[in-house]
Amino acid sequence: MTYNEIHKLILASADKIAEFKPDTLVAIADRGFFPARVLRTFLKHPDSKKNIPIVAIGLSLYEQLPGTTAEQIGAEVVRTQWLGPEGAKILLGRRALIVDEVDDSRKTLQYAISELQKDVEKELLELPESEREAQRTKFAVFVVHNKLKDKLGSLPADLPYFAGSNVEDVWLDYPWEATDIDEHDRLAARQKAHV
Amino acid sequence: MTYNEIHKLILASADKIAEFKPDTLVAIADRGFFPARVLRTFLKHPDSKKNIPIVAIGLSLYEQLPGTTAEQIGAEVVRTQWLGPEGAKILLGRRALIVDEVDDSRKTLQYAISELQKDVEKELLELPESEREAQRTKFAVFVVHNKLKDKLGSLPADLPYFAGSNVEDVWLDYPWEATDIDEHDRLAARQKAHV
Repeated sequence: MTYNEIHKLILASADKIAEFKPDTLVAIADRGFFPARVLRTFLKHPDSKKNIPIVAIGLSLYEQLPGTTAEQIGAEVVRTQWLGPEGAKILLGRRALIVDEVDDSRKTLQYAISELQKDVEKELLELPESEREAQRTKFAVFVVHNKLKDKLGSLPADLPYFAGSNVEDVWLDYPWEATDIDEHDRLAARQKAHV
Repeated sequence: MTYNEIHKLILASADKIAEFKPDTLVAIADRGFFPARVLRTFLKHPDSKKNIPIVAIGLSLYEQLPGTTAEQIGAEVVRTQWLGPEGAKILLGRRALIVDEVDDSRKTLQYAISELQKDVEKELLELPESEREAQRTKFAVFVVHNKLKDKLGSLPADLPYFAGSNVEDVWLDYPWEATDIDEHDRLAARQKAHV
């Protein structure tokens, strides 16, 4: 996949996503950074037509970070960054689209949604009961690629879910991980010709 | 500028940046997301050779966000997100490279550095005096483009500063802002042919 191919895949998803009317993007760092930044070009705030803010949360299943044990890698989602000092307050009353690169095992997405929802519920308790329902955050998910495989994690059944493309359970070679981008593009063109 | 051109510009800067030995990237959201993600592919932790974590801070000079007044836009840096609940603790003892897309007026970078330094100094006061110097964060900056113009903001004179390219004070057309990426690339090729 070249940068431009992924850019176009995100563009092709934007119309469907716009129906959810997101007003906040939550990028899962750092794999969601590129998709969130590009998607933002194609989406505007449903009411004000302004740009939509992106907040980042850092989650990792795979990385050795200071304090991570070998057992945790791949088995447990580790928070590397969370919402800022204002916490989930910034999400109250919002329509938040969580953005990631790929939905593989679904464990990272399950963790993100359930933890964000917990944080929101905690904030709601600070409000008078009559206001809570209206201020409850509406969540949705967008991933560039969804791998068609048995998922270890699960998402709420009524959660709007958007994928740029559904793909087999193969290794995905993203351009931002290429040390030689010309060679990467040559391989991408060759693979495309063989599909 | 196409995606691949910017990717290569970041690669071309990586060797110089590696001399600073960064062990943490601080991406200024959301313009620094793409450069930070790509740069990370070319840098490894100076000791462990593992991937370097990216934390995001949200700063905006230009955006209408909930609560922003018209006067603030373009005049004042507004925080849209900051370090997570652990705050500047995660930066203690680190070599942190702040990453942004373009150094235009330098106001955003000045704000980022001075605020992060303030936060670090506050954390240092929690430590015994004898440990403070060793735990003081070393900062540096990387931007894809530095505009050659009078800057409104300033940076510490001894701050390591890396730019992918120094450019005239012109509008920069980044691919992630392109609604039609093919048309964007045609224009980029035409501009390149005329330079």
